[in-house]
Amino acid sequence: MTKEHDLINRYFAPLCSPSDAAPAFGLLDDTAILTPTKDHQLLVTTDALVAGVHFFADDPAHSIAHKALAVNASDIVAKGGHPDSYLLTIALPKTIEPEWLQEFASGLGEAQSEFGCQLIGGDTVATSGPLMISITLLGKIPAEKMVRRKGAKPGDVVFVSGTIGDAALGLLLRENDERITKAVLGERHSAHLLERYLHPRPRIELAAIIAAYASAALDISDGLVGDFGKLCAESDVGGTIEAARVPLSDAASRTLAQQPDLLETILTGGDDYEVLAVVPAVLADRFEQEAVNVMRIGLIVERQGGIKVLDADGQPLELAQCAYDHFGDIER
Amino acid sequence: MTKEHDLINRYFAPLCSPSDAAPAFGLLDDTAILTPTKDHQLLVTTDALVAGVHFFADDPAHSIAHKALAVNASDIVAKGGHPDSYLLTIALPKTIEPEWLQEFASGLGEAQSEFGCQLIGGDTVATSGPLMISITLLGKIPAEKMVRRKGAKPGDVVFVSGTIGDAALGLLLRENDERITKAVLGERHSAHLLERYLHPRPRIELAAIIAAYASAALDISDGLVGDFGKLCAESDVGGTIEAARVPLSDAASRTLAQQPDLLETILTGGDDYEVLAVVPAVLADRFEQEAVNVMRIGLIVERQGGIKVLDADGQPLELAQCAYDHFGDIER
Repeated sequence: MTKEHDLINRYFAPLCSPSDAAPAFGLLDDTAILTPTKDHQLLVTTDALVAGVHFFADDPAHSIAHKALAVNASDIVAKGGHPDSYLLTIALPKTIEPEWLQEFASGLGEAQSEFGCQLIGGDTVATSGPLMISITLLGKIPAEKMVRRKGAKPGDVVFVSGTIGDAALGLLLRENDERITKAVLGERHSAHLLERYLHPRPRIELAAIIAAYASAALDISDGLVGDFGKLCAESDVGGTIEAARVPLSDAASRTLAQQPDLLETILTGGDDYEVLAVVPAVLADRFEQEAVNVMRIGLIVERQGGIKVLDADGQPLELAQCAYDHFGDIER
Repeated sequence: MTKEHDLINRYFAPLCSPSDAAPAFGLLDDTAILTPTKDHQLLVTTDALVAGVHFFADDPAHSIAHKALAVNASDIVAKGGHPDSYLLTIALPKTIEPEWLQEFASGLGEAQSEFGCQLIGGDTVATSGPLMISITLLGKIPAEKMVRRKGAKPGDVVFVSGTIGDAALGLLLRENDERITKAVLGERHSAHLLERYLHPRPRIELAAIIAAYASAALDISDGLVGDFGKLCAESDVGGTIEAARVPLSDAASRTLAQQPDLLETILTGGDDYEVLAVVPAVLADRFEQEAVNVMRIGLIVERQGGIKVLDADGQPLELAQCAYDHFGDIER
């Protein structure tokens, strides 16, 4: 057996269908095969993570695996679909030990169970550079139900899932930023923020309801305000977000009380992997009742209204990290 | 605009459907969408290339792009399918210049035209390591027509497309191996071998006929003999290849005449990206007539016959690079 064959067989084949069975044939054939049903379409996305850029090389291997799949699942969910199957490409430095791979595969297994998908293929290559993981995820969605970034109309209500800013604050903690410390924040809140950075939780439970109600949606990966700008740009509309309505965890609220200047990090930092969903006003109450853990944070307006984040007095906040032209495109 | 957004917009968006249209929406949404037809299944494969491992960092950018798509297309074709759509992940070192990206995108555009597929998504990341390209390719195949590695039966005839060993010899030339030199081989033959290493040509024209006739098939990427061993292992059979029947280019024939010990490189070297197809004996004549550029090179036998490469006298060749256990698994 080749070393690659052995590695695939040992760590990754247990995550997919056996050699006799579609779709993956135990990773022993040249391709996988998918048999689509006529009442569904397939969503496809790909996201890569590089050590030192998207995660810390010494993050736990199971967390890296979970995050690599989660960031892809988040894209599928935001379109109203459910994760179905994925391909994993991993570029391994020579320093990687079998124990690391075992833990990585174990984390991947847990993540695929959590998200309801399975491994169907991949590639393993050696690299002289940093560890890199690239995943392509396919999702299923009932025909004609994909929710685009385009489609928001003036008057629509802006919702966001979960809480915003935790991961960006967790990253600051991880980087030993002086504005946020475990000593001041306390063990429990610190642990929450670090956990949210390490383990994004795509909102699988919202997929069907987004498909049913949203006029536009996207996953929040590059920061709430910047991603809201992208949605507005694609929809050719403007929009406002009320900063005071943006849902915060206890840990983020406490951090903000101590360091008000971290509001910008919360609103524009990345790695939330929550959903921003825009819902027509007539459906907003029903959406709010049926969706778990979502919050109204703003309104879509005409394009010429631009994109604004309002403070508690209704005044626009100046956010240094983001500026918009009249199309809502982002200059960073 | 972010730098990544600008890069995608400039170089890659022209390779896919515009922002208003499925499947790719101009690369401006979170996912692409595919609408399968009920009489087709989808084949999915992924292959990554790393600079310094799978190509030379100073290879022309358009060749690197072509090869990255070609090695994936080769997998789809060997299963009897046609390339349809692909996602591209590229990890870029800081040293990459806009001119390189322009040439890369141009090569990708030519390759996708040649193979009949289109870009539908991707990711662009920065890396401190070598350039890396990972492509996931989806292909279409009429329902229930996928040709597996499994399925070869004793008595079936072994065919191979094109010529074998050119790329492996081209790599030796490129590496200035002393056994093969431009001075001895001549300009035309040297150019042929180098070209075959740089530009694999998946046999798109054979896809439908493989689906119609083959009992088993795979693409030859890791060397003819080793890959034949994998097919036999999956099919639980043995097989023989007659070395003298393996099709060689003029350049490879001339090289072999001068350096007979390069036979092993030809038979076990990689990067051919030809198809090895096994066809039931009763269909072999028709397959041979209808398929362009294929050659009978051997026979499938019972598993206990093992895997053998026979010389012109019918004696088994000893190939140091490959040895087989009784299942045909490969020890390298």
